[in-house]
Amino acid sequence: MAKVAILMGSASDEECVAPCMKVLANLGIDYEVTVTSAHRTPKRTADFVAAQEASGCQVFICAAGMAAHLAGAVASQTLIPVIGIPVASKNLGGLDALLSTVQMPAGFPVATVAIDGAKNAAWLAAQILALHDQELKEKIAKERLKMQESVEAAAESINSKYAKS
Amino acid sequence: MAKVAILMGSASDEECVAPCMKVLANLGIDYEVTVTSAHRTPKRTADFVAAQEASGCQVFICAAGMAAHLAGAVASQTLIPVIGIPVASKNLGGLDALLSTVQMPAGFPVATVAIDGAKNAAWLAAQILALHDQELKEKIAKERLKMQESVEAAAESINSKYAKS
Amino acid sequence: MAKVAILMGSASDEECVAPCMKVLANLGIDYEVTVTSAHRTPKRTADFVAAQEASGCQVFICAAGMAAHLAGAVASQTLIPVIGIPVASKNLGGLDALLSTVQMPAGFPVATVAIDGAKNAAWLAAQILALHDQELKEKIAKERLKMQESVEAAAESINSKYAKS
Amino acid sequence: MAKVAILMGSASDEECVAPCMKVLANLGIDYEVTVTSAHRTPKRTADFVAAQEASGCQVFICAAGMAAHLAGAVASQTLIPVIGIPVASKNLGGLDALLSTVQMPAGFPVATVAIDGAKNAAWLAAQILALHDQELKEKIAKERLKMQESVEAAAESINSKYAKS
Amino acid sequence: MAKVAILMGSASDEECVAPCMKVLANLGIDYEVTVTSAHRTPKRTADFVAAQEASGCQVFICAAGMAAHLAGAVASQTLIPVIGIPVASKNLGGLDALLSTVQMPAGFPVATVAIDGAKNAAWLAAQILALHDQELKEKIAKERLKMQESVEAAAESINSKYAKS
Amino acid sequence: MAKVAILMGSASDEECVAPCMKVLANLGIDYEVTVTSAHRTPKRTADFVAAQEASGCQVFICAAGMAAHLAGAVASQTLIPVIGIPVASKNLGGLDALLSTVQMPAGFPVATVAIDGAKNAAWLAAQILALHDQELKEKIAKERLKMQESVEAAAESINSKYAKS
Amino acid sequence: MAKVAILMGSASDEECVAPCMKVLANLGIDYEVTVTSAHRTPKRTADFVAAQEASGCQVFICAAGMAAHLAGAVASQTLIPVIGIPVASKNLGGLDALLSTVQMPAGFPVATVAIDGAKNAAWLAAQILALHDQELKEKIAKERLKMQESVEAAAESINSKYAKS
Amino acid sequence: MAKVAILMGSASDEECVAPCMKVLANLGIDYEVTVTSAHRTPKRTADFVAAQEASGCQVFICAAGMAAHLAGAVASQTLIPVIGIPVASKNLGGLDALLSTVQMPAGFPVATVAIDGAKNAAWLAAQILALHDQELKEKIAKERLKMQESVEAAAESINSKYAKS
Repeated sequence: MAKVAILMGSASDEECVAPCMKVLANLGIDYEVTVTSAHRTPKRTADFVAAQEASGCQVFICAAGMAAHLAGAVASQTLIPVIGIPVASKNLGGLDALLSTVQMPAGFPVATVAIDGAKNAAWLAAQILALHDQELKEKIAKERLKMQESVEAAAESINSKYAKS
Repeated sequence: MAKVAILMGSASDEECVAPCMKVLANLGIDYEVTVTSAHRTPKRTADFVAAQEASGCQVFICAAGMAAHLAGAVASQTLIPVIGIPVASKNLGGLDALLSTVQMPAGFPVATVAIDGAKNAAWLAAQILALHDQELKEKIAKERLKMQESVEAAAESINSKYAKS
Repeated sequence: MAKVAILMGSASDEECVAPCMKVLANLGIDYEVTVTSAHRTPKRTADFVAAQEASGCQVFICAAGMAAHLAGAVASQTLIPVIGIPVASKNLGGLDALLSTVQMPAGFPVATVAIDGAKNAAWLAAQILALHDQELKEKIAKERLKMQESVEAAAESINSKYAKS
Repeated sequence: MAKVAILMGSASDEECVAPCMKVLANLGIDYEVTVTSAHRTPKRTADFVAAQEASGCQVFICAAGMAAHLAGAVASQTLIPVIGIPVASKNLGGLDALLSTVQMPAGFPVATVAIDGAKNAAWLAAQILALHDQELKEKIAKERLKMQESVEAAAESINSKYAKS
Repeated sequence: MAKVAILMGSASDEECVAPCMKVLANLGIDYEVTVTSAHRTPKRTADFVAAQEASGCQVFICAAGMAAHLAGAVASQTLIPVIGIPVASKNLGGLDALLSTVQMPAGFPVATVAIDGAKNAAWLAAQILALHDQELKEKIAKERLKMQESVEAAAESINSKYAKS
Repeated sequence: MAKVAILMGSASDEECVAPCMKVLANLGIDYEVTVTSAHRTPKRTADFVAAQEASGCQVFICAAGMAAHLAGAVASQTLIPVIGIPVASKNLGGLDALLSTVQMPAGFPVATVAIDGAKNAAWLAAQILALHDQELKEKIAKERLKMQESVEAAAESINSKYAKS
Repeated sequence: MAKVAILMGSASDEECVAPCMKVLANLGIDYEVTVTSAHRTPKRTADFVAAQEASGCQVFICAAGMAAHLAGAVASQTLIPVIGIPVASKNLGGLDALLSTVQMPAGFPVATVAIDGAKNAAWLAAQILALHDQELKEKIAKERLKMQESVEAAAESINSKYAKS
Repeated sequence: MAKVAILMGSASDEECVAPCMKVLANLGIDYEVTVTSAHRTPKRTADFVAAQEASGCQVFICAAGMAAHLAGAVASQTLIPVIGIPVASKNLGGLDALLSTVQMPAGFPVATVAIDGAKNAAWLAAQILALHDQELKEKIAKERLKMQESVEAAAESINSKYAKS
């Protein structure tokens, strides 16, 4: 049973979204992933959302570019938290997708992460699930420690490279 | 039987959209107008679109602000042309609504007019209908003449005001 | 007799506009295409517009970049619907062309599609023509089905790639 | 015991944030609210976060304007989900606060809602809590019904106002 | 015989453009002013340009807002220098007019001044005329001296107000 | 002998700049203030800079709007640190002044503070002076304590207002 | 004796500015070109401007990027028309240079052309010179004819490529 | 004993920041450099700041991208001047980092330099230190002379390349 369902608006979003799947997998979080479009396959999107919700999904992650309506469309069909990843496209650096995702009307929030912020969509989903999963919370805490250590390692490396004597 | 159906995403869009109704009325074009939301009432939106289409509507006009998904949602449910009016809201001057409306993916165009461009939504709808309505075409041509005359009247007034002697 | 006339402001717009011709050709819609500039060849532009209109053209599609005046110039000379494609150029990602195309004054709408949205210009033209062409309407509907199917195929492919076991 | 802790960066954010408290109160969700600044009172902020977390808080909501660091600072100190409200200030319409809030580095997500989107911060918090609170879920569902009904009422009012006969 | 011809796209631009007329009048430069629109009255615009050019006009000043095509349209019809004033409108602070005016294609420059920069349009026209009018050049030099003196007067006033003792 | 010299580009900047003078006065820092323009009075600007530098000034603060060149012009004429305040004007919210002030070429930095950030110009100047003035450093530290206390007071007030029982 | 003096702020602007020299050379207009910086060599800039003015220069063309002050600095030191070319740099697509160049205060206009619009700087200079040089005016008119012909040639080529049968 | 401490938010900022170290080294200014993150290692950041301050550091330089909080976080923990370098990232050209760095609240200034302006961070630090280090001031003055000379050399090269005969 997947706790997280990932929707991307187009096959071309795969490269942007892949790090999301990787973070979830590393944390041992089951997920479903599909391609479905707010505009090309609205019924498929609604059916997928309903099916995931019925089978116990607790967070939706939606990635889309340009006039990115996917997260908003999902948000209008569920009471489960929806996370939106604005995908950058060639011309406007993702500003279009960011505004289309985050500027939702009252009552239908999309928890928006950074442009191309697929990893943070996974981390946010994990933090939501960890509210009721102590083991997962500890895994996240361990990963944060690793991030700290990687900063420290980078610091050492930089430091020795630019040492003054 | 209405040829044009106008959808606004919120009652607060009325002030922005009213000039659209006025232009249509002046041209003698029947229209239906409703409030319906892509997020709060997706089913109502779909039902309204289907009903209008069934009863002979030939153009949809959709007005919405912020993450303005209404026009896109309608476009995904009909083969009839959809015109989008991006409604300015307080903070970003309508840039969010403009990008959310115009940056649609291939296959699902929204014919976007200017921010708060309610009048032009009506003019564009009229031009589409006039392709098969000679009488309407002549009405539009007459209105354009009036616009010309108002420019000429303004020119005369400005000219006399700033005359150098 | 062409139903659609395509104007691009410069030979350099060809790469951006080509998908428009392709979509129209796939749908069996006759079109004329030319290069003509609002600034370098205003008379040529006006003559082309008048000639196309006289020979039965029902939609104009205009593509231009930067201070993109071409669609607006055409709109000022015809009562036929004008679709504008804002072409991205190197520096501002097409924001200049988008605003120059969409922010038209009342009475002279340009039906604006996405930046570099040449395909959607064709789809929008097709939807307008299909209002009085049932066969074309069915072709568009079939193409939408294919788009659905391509989403479903992509979903299957993604799904199997990221399957958890 | 409060489930939601609300932090605003300055007393001047109160007007923007008040609707957040109202939505939470209407849903019967206990909350704590404080003023604390990422820059002026970093220790106070850290202490408040730690204390809230210890006493069972499950969601942080942070509102700040300009170089809005508050949500990010809280996110760096907790594993609990953090929701960010970018507060518009006079000059840039909240674009500064939006980018400062949403563009977080990997590992430290802030679930960002619309500029001045205080209500949606509350709705998102409620949806997260409702994952394990069936009664709350039903309350949210009821509120969504009321939103639907208010759309329908607005539609009726608009409809009668612009009726054509 | 007017040396400068001022075109504004709409009567509503008068307030923005008035300081232009005032600067010219102060410098004793004859001007013609009219209202004419690139879209509503393209023929009137072309006729006005041709007539002014024939009667000895040496600079065109064009003020327009939104998709501001007026200056570009004039530039396409004359070899005389064209100055463009981007007029701010409510929603985008004149960014649309600025980009529509300044981003002209090669061969058809518009000498663009600041958003709402009507005074500088006049100063620029004056500097162009002064290349062959020594008396005018001296008038401009005198005005610059007055500007200097007004800075010095302001400095004195500020200084005494904030004096420390 | 003034340690800080404040230059504003126009008398109209006074309202924006006044809080800068107030912060400096509260900290007991002597300052000179003048109005001088990079464009209208370049010689006056250079003379003022040279005179201040000769009499022991250690920081320049420059406030200007639009194409805000004043801080850059001063930076090109001195080796003393230059702080720039971008002043917001009506149309672009100060984005023009911000970019004109901060995007300086290598070798000629302007220490830029927030749009309309006159207070922070003063605080930054004070921090620079405090590097060699222990008494001033303690005054700044005390002011920071007061800021903390005002946050705590605001927190108490908010807390009691929204208390849940 | 050069009629046009070209100033670029940095050697790195050469690639951007070269088309300006080429257009001038093609039109047979004598020019001087130098590298000089508003910030690194303010005195050299002022001296060059004075020397050029003394030797009969009638137009200054200034190219600079980022916080592009060069054109403004020149404008403050001469009564001769100053044309500004905003040079795009890597990060902001030239928006910084555009605003720094065009948003000049009243009295000191910079005739701004498009971002990287070096050709139009030359064309604008030529149009100003042609006010008193009938031969040059005819050259410009001939070049415009060539531009027309190149549009027509492009049209023919596009037309045959996309011919429908 | 280092007078300048450089903090970069991530190892990936090294390429952007390296020119800062080079300018400082050329001027003979001792510096410490580390990698430390406002979010991943807040305690490490605070400890580093405290240690540097204790050992006599007089300027902090902080480089970070996206929601660039590092400079602000340091500014909240010290009374020593803090210089911020907004680092451009792929999507928004550094506009996010610029606004996150410069738009600080009153009392906690960050002396912001250009996007990717690492050299100017070093020059600004040097100018601050030179207030009490005459030898350093002379070094900076010499470097400015070299910059002048490089402009002059570039001018000569350009001049000979484009000489007209």
